[in-house]
Amino acid sequence: MGTQRTDPTVSEARALDFQRVRAASLALVAGLSEADAQVQSMPDASPAKWHLAHTTWFFETVVLEAVEAAFVPHHPAYRVLFNSYYHGIGEQHARAQRGLVTRPGLADVLDYRRAVDARVRAWLSAAPTTETLSLLELGLQHEQQHQELILTDLLHLLSCNPLLPAYRPPAAAPPRDTVPLRWLEFDGGLIQIGHAGQGFAFDNEAPRHRQWLAPFALANRLVSQGEWAEFVADGGYLDPRWWLSAGWDWVQAQGIEHPLYWRPDCSSDWQVFGLRGVAPLDPQAPVAHLCLYEADAYARWLGARTGLSLRLPTEAEWEHAVAGDAPAHLAAGAFVESETLQALAPLPADGLLQAMGTLWQWTSSAYAPYPGFKPWKGVVAEYNGKFMANQYVLRGGSVASPRSHLRASYRNFFPADARWQFSGLRLAMDRD
Amino acid sequence: MGTQRTDPTVSEARALDFQRVRAASLALVAGLSEADAQVQSMPDASPAKWHLAHTTWFFETVVLEAVEAAFVPHHPAYRVLFNSYYHGIGEQHARAQRGLVTRPGLADVLDYRRAVDARVRAWLSAAPTTETLSLLELGLQHEQQHQELILTDLLHLLSCNPLLPAYRPPAAAPPRDTVPLRWLEFDGGLIQIGHAGQGFAFDNEAPRHRQWLAPFALANRLVSQGEWAEFVADGGYLDPRWWLSAGWDWVQAQGIEHPLYWRPDCSSDWQVFGLRGVAPLDPQAPVAHLCLYEADAYARWLGARTGLSLRLPTEAEWEHAVAGDAPAHLAAGAFVESETLQALAPLPADGLLQAMGTLWQWTSSAYAPYPGFKPWKGVVAEYNGKFMANQYVLRGGSVASPRSHLRASYRNFFPADARWQFSGLRLAMDRD
Amino acid sequence: MGTQRTDPTVSEARALDFQRVRAASLALVAGLSEADAQVQSMPDASPAKWHLAHTTWFFETVVLEAVEAAFVPHHPAYRVLFNSYYHGIGEQHARAQRGLVTRPGLADVLDYRRAVDARVRAWLSAAPTTETLSLLELGLQHEQQHQELILTDLLHLLSCNPLLPAYRPPAAAPPRDTVPLRWLEFDGGLIQIGHAGQGFAFDNEAPRHRQWLAPFALANRLVSQGEWAEFVADGGYLDPRWWLSAGWDWVQAQGIEHPLYWRPDCSSDWQVFGLRGVAPLDPQAPVAHLCLYEADAYARWLGARTGLSLRLPTEAEWEHAVAGDAPAHLAAGAFVESETLQALAPLPADGLLQAMGTLWQWTSSAYAPYPGFKPWKGVVAEYNGKFMANQYVLRGGSVASPRSHLRASYRNFFPADARWQFSGLRLAMDRD
Amino acid sequence: MGTQRTDPTVSEARALDFQRVRAASLALVAGLSEADAQVQSMPDASPAKWHLAHTTWFFETVVLEAVEAAFVPHHPAYRVLFNSYYHGIGEQHARAQRGLVTRPGLADVLDYRRAVDARVRAWLSAAPTTETLSLLELGLQHEQQHQELILTDLLHLLSCNPLLPAYRPPAAAPPRDTVPLRWLEFDGGLIQIGHAGQGFAFDNEAPRHRQWLAPFALANRLVSQGEWAEFVADGGYLDPRWWLSAGWDWVQAQGIEHPLYWRPDCSSDWQVFGLRGVAPLDPQAPVAHLCLYEADAYARWLGARTGLSLRLPTEAEWEHAVAGDAPAHLAAGAFVESETLQALAPLPADGLLQAMGTLWQWTSSAYAPYPGFKPWKGVVAEYNGKFMANQYVLRGGSVASPRSHLRASYRNFFPADARWQFSGLRLAMDRD
Repeated sequence: MGTQRTDPTVSEARALDFQRVRAASLALVAGLSEADAQVQSMPDASPAKWHLAHTTWFFETVVLEAVEAAFVPHHPAYRVLFNSYYHGIGEQHARAQRGLVTRPGLADVLDYRRAVDARVRAWLSAAPTTETLSLLELGLQHEQQHQELILTDLLHLLSCNPLLPAYRPPAAAPPRDTVPLRWLEFDGGLIQIGHAGQGFAFDNEAPRHRQWLAPFALANRLVSQGEWAEFVADGGYLDPRWWLSAGWDWVQAQGIEHPLYWRPDCSSDWQVFGLRGVAPLDPQAPVAHLCLYEADAYARWLGARTGLSLRLPTEAEWEHAVAGDAPAHLAAGAFVESETLQALAPLPADGLLQAMGTLWQWTSSAYAPYPGFKPWKGVVAEYNGKFMANQYVLRGGSVASPRSHLRASYRNFFPADARWQFSGLRLAMDRD
Repeated sequence: MGTQRTDPTVSEARALDFQRVRAASLALVAGLSEADAQVQSMPDASPAKWHLAHTTWFFETVVLEAVEAAFVPHHPAYRVLFNSYYHGIGEQHARAQRGLVTRPGLADVLDYRRAVDARVRAWLSAAPTTETLSLLELGLQHEQQHQELILTDLLHLLSCNPLLPAYRPPAAAPPRDTVPLRWLEFDGGLIQIGHAGQGFAFDNEAPRHRQWLAPFALANRLVSQGEWAEFVADGGYLDPRWWLSAGWDWVQAQGIEHPLYWRPDCSSDWQVFGLRGVAPLDPQAPVAHLCLYEADAYARWLGARTGLSLRLPTEAEWEHAVAGDAPAHLAAGAFVESETLQALAPLPADGLLQAMGTLWQWTSSAYAPYPGFKPWKGVVAEYNGKFMANQYVLRGGSVASPRSHLRASYRNFFPADARWQFSGLRLAMDRD
Repeated sequence: MGTQRTDPTVSEARALDFQRVRAASLALVAGLSEADAQVQSMPDASPAKWHLAHTTWFFETVVLEAVEAAFVPHHPAYRVLFNSYYHGIGEQHARAQRGLVTRPGLADVLDYRRAVDARVRAWLSAAPTTETLSLLELGLQHEQQHQELILTDLLHLLSCNPLLPAYRPPAAAPPRDTVPLRWLEFDGGLIQIGHAGQGFAFDNEAPRHRQWLAPFALANRLVSQGEWAEFVADGGYLDPRWWLSAGWDWVQAQGIEHPLYWRPDCSSDWQVFGLRGVAPLDPQAPVAHLCLYEADAYARWLGARTGLSLRLPTEAEWEHAVAGDAPAHLAAGAFVESETLQALAPLPADGLLQAMGTLWQWTSSAYAPYPGFKPWKGVVAEYNGKFMANQYVLRGGSVASPRSHLRASYRNFFPADARWQFSGLRLAMDRD
Repeated sequence: MGTQRTDPTVSEARALDFQRVRAASLALVAGLSEADAQVQSMPDASPAKWHLAHTTWFFETVVLEAVEAAFVPHHPAYRVLFNSYYHGIGEQHARAQRGLVTRPGLADVLDYRRAVDARVRAWLSAAPTTETLSLLELGLQHEQQHQELILTDLLHLLSCNPLLPAYRPPAAAPPRDTVPLRWLEFDGGLIQIGHAGQGFAFDNEAPRHRQWLAPFALANRLVSQGEWAEFVADGGYLDPRWWLSAGWDWVQAQGIEHPLYWRPDCSSDWQVFGLRGVAPLDPQAPVAHLCLYEADAYARWLGARTGLSLRLPTEAEWEHAVAGDAPAHLAAGAFVESETLQALAPLPADGLLQAMGTLWQWTSSAYAPYPGFKPWKGVVAEYNGKFMANQYVLRGGSVASPRSHLRASYRNFFPADARWQFSGLRLAMDRD
């Protein structure tokens, strides 16, 4: 069945998707200098130019090499140079040295994109099989993941510049009323999570499976910058009681005193750096760029203040709470298409706010295979499964994620000390 | 209720327990030189002398300080010097520098033990309350944990000596028939795990709670040294396909080629170092001192060879499989009282072999709070909860664990790269 | 005397010098992409863009700020951003993070250069004092130092690219006859070294002072690539006998097996990377990019083979041997103006060959103040003196040095493990 | 001539020397626990037990192996285990892991000493040759070097203990009048330094050779603790102006605020830790345990305050000033035989005070071979020469040095950041 020819209308639709996704990557780097696109600000981040090349490499190596009878690589060195982590494909250029490769230059990489695009389009116009179309789909989803990384990595790079240049011009956040924190209650029971429908999903979202959940409650919105400033002012970063032991070691070793992109101004108020430059702290807007240790510490601190058993949600609780209403949450969410480029305060409303989009939400769930998990076959077997250790799951997407890339079952994952993602915090609570 | 006076027969029984547990620690260091007891071979390990002092400090600080009206510390500096990680109690001497404190000497520490023992006995003879007796119980359980660490840390120290001295004299392993690997099947369903009975349990074992398990199978015995030697011979440590990404980084960075205490001999057979010195690899005996990355890689390697979905068990699967028969497994298990000091081959039998004792068994479960987890109150709130990040659960106990210390619900935990524990591997499998 | 007005013909000559030196920097970056000029390949190296900006900052901060009555900085942030190491001037942007500053971009830096150039020229046309002209002279010498660093740092950057791109097009080395190694003898005695004439010299070259030299001999030419290949083939990098203890630690820790830019080709011959790309080893050409440890080890190895007391020259021996004929050596030397960009084999001739230009020559002399050394006054007091620890003196200049920048008394200095400079080796010997 | 038999009275005298030196080592460890003798507090230091074993290994390997016809090693593993750095002899146990070897224990090492002593005495009683006697002499000098290291390494170990235990009982420093700082002037000229007499000297002290010295002055005494406290109080450790660049990097990276063994007490006065425990700062006593960076910074700071060109002496200046009166300086010096174990204030007197003994005096001279230097032949070729990089010369000996071990030509050497030696500071000055 996988090898049957595709209906031409399907492959035409896929060609439109391809054009749209590829163009979206270019739009993100519009206005950047060659230098902006070149530099790697830390080993965990990659240059924008590398993202542009690597996503192209993925189409070339995973799709074209599988479908072109007389496949010839665009450039023989690129197979290694732009391989991220696929041992099954071969050697990889050292991750921490991606920023040292000034040649091929940005123009060469754009040429590379155009050449591969043309070959993909040629193949798409020639009745591809269902099976190979699924590789194209994977390539598009892959590129959308890197679109978010282009933004997170650029923000980190610009934050290393003492002049704090803005990626895009400032935009005043619209004034919004305070949305009080309220608790939404869920009964739990024997529920199901995981992807089961027709559309695309990553291997790590399957199989759909049962989990037993005790009754729980979720906060109606994300924790705000103003609330976080109280935690800082109360000495939250100075008191080991609130921190996981590994988190406290991290705070001490790194000298952490506030969220990654916060900066004290001369009158000891906070300034917050973002893709639209530096602006005063917005008390209603959600606090962003937290790591798991910070999110967890805040829950413990506020729990001690309020006498509630506050904690992070599990990923099953989160998915159970969101999945029922996923289309509405997706439609309402602030994704990259909104062009806010920063997490804004919620509009007052009932129910679960900021459920999808705005900021990734840390869960307390270690990133692990679902019961019965099977990695994909072939070179993409390495896509997700091998990272299932020492990472934590984040859910929901952010202002840097493409809306069409997200689902309620989507599992993002980062180490407990990662702060440069668009990551925030929704509180959860036991009910009993 | 907690403050009622205890029945004298209860406190007499507790006094006997106290004497027995305290004596067991001393028996472990019998025959060691002052130098053996002094040295810290790596930051993760502690000197035997420190273990002897710290367990005493625990009784002094957690019990005596709570029950003696006119509490006076044995030595004012010990409160900091022998505090391991309790911020609630105050400052701690730096962990990595425990081995630099040559004074107090071993004799001083033994005096400290005798003095605190006398004070504890005096208190026990004076009708303690139920509540304070529970602190004594915790002190005893705590000391039993450190008894295992005395052995693991000594083994590591001796392994750093090129002369490879033995902790105890060699003892020939009894010849045993090969026990074939067989699969024991479990139906899963909505089961319960966690501690619920009358006896002692750590806070991290509660509350007992429901979990849904898909059908699964467990291997009847641990993976053997002979089987592991095949993995090594097949290039298991050289092939990234078998390894988690973080595990492969670890293999490469550390240059890992075999389990921690294996050494090639001159004819390229393996020698294995243990508490009874160096001996040739015993093909039937279980392979020990694995880290999670190694255990996980082996499962993936053997799965690829056999076409089975091999993996580590989850802690819920493990507990579900063992808990029903826990008294028999405890009785049959090889614990420290067996004085084997090394994991021996199983005796042929039906059912789950080596379920408890022999070696701790890695699970795929990240160490996390159970739903509804509440840390203990007071200074012991830091006992377990704050370590619930970036660690994995091990189950079952080992030849270095006191039998009276173990339970089916017992959760041990170490980072994914920890190898110096008595840790082995039982394979699990999906059934479908 | 320092404050008298300068003769207009002098300041016109200085204006020509200024234009020439500033233009030479721009010529070095002609043809580079913005990315090439942006990246910092290691903490010891700096981006070409930074060199262009920092040398401009030097004129702005050291000259214009001293001479302009209504000095206004070109950009207020540049004072910190482009300060290299002058604590007396104020804060400095962290050295290892120079490559992260993508804005100001290359065009902004070129604007900065033009603006400062115009202000310097305006001041020069208005009868500057002798004293301030000496600051201009220092700025020019300073810029010439950075011209060499632009080349060394670019070569390092390009060497980190697996495609090994060339800075400038390849140029075949002219065929040259082998020049046999011969020994030139010197009697020593109570000689003098150090700068004493009218022209510019750095503070570290003064005062001219007496030294007693025992009789010695110098090799007539630098050690060649072919000779070095024999050292490698003889296991020179594998035998601790030849190495200083710190050098052997370095060899072991870094896994050093050959000079920095040598690469084995598929037939196990050597390829050598340089500013003109990769080419086969040229046996007659001098071996370059050595560190002191390598140079010293070679002398000991060849000494053991030949029975001679071979060693590096001291800086006094070197200067004594060269200074008498300095004008001829300067005129004959291969400097950056030769545009070879790589060290070529010597032309057969008598006397001291490759004395100046070609490659910097390691001496055995630790970089230390001359007897009676006085640092300059003011902000430039930090120019040289504070680096007089844990570095070694190199003499003579290289194919990357401007000819007008060199003197016989010139003291260059780098740590014993620095390899990315254009540094080679001339052997010396005791006579007795 | 080297192989002629020795006059029996000579070898009897040597046997007495041997007994005396070997006993002196044991006297230093008298009263230490096995733990005290076992622990290695940092990679640069060694356990006392190791010093006792290594010095014995030196006699066994360098002397007995050369003179015993049927040499059999005391223990086959010791050849590697107690080899410090002699590649010519073979493999070495890793330096940083010396403290992990708890077996052989202290009693085994003392047995080793007794067994080797007996064999050395047997050989001495059998008419050794002059040549082999010179190896014995080297062994004795070597052991005396390690005697000083036993004390420096023990002091460091005890300083890592928060209880600050004393090596030997406290002894009140005798009250002494202040000795004003005075300058002793020297004319310099063409002088000679280096060893030339009959007695023992290390290879690095030869050959005696000429040097030209400009006129200079030396301070009559060492810098005192009280003077150093002024430097601290004036922000000396906070101001980059006083520091070599590498020194400032070290101050910043290590967070250095005062000399190694100084500790603020509760009233912000200084306490100083030493081999006799903690005591209040003694303003007249010389400041000890400085590194070169600190010594150099103090000279620059005081120079700026006084307008004098203050600096460290060169080793040639030091030797020229001391050598003429060496017997008197040796006789007057406080060496280990004085049993003060700490540097005391000088007694008022004319001339150069504290010239030898008291504290090693940093010089500005990088440790380098003298002109015409030849390392010894054979296995002891590695003794000194290979360390001639990145170290600085100290002169004069200390309260931890045996008097019979010192000479005016003696060159000690340590890296610029080494602080755990008994090292102090005598100021020097240019005269002009």
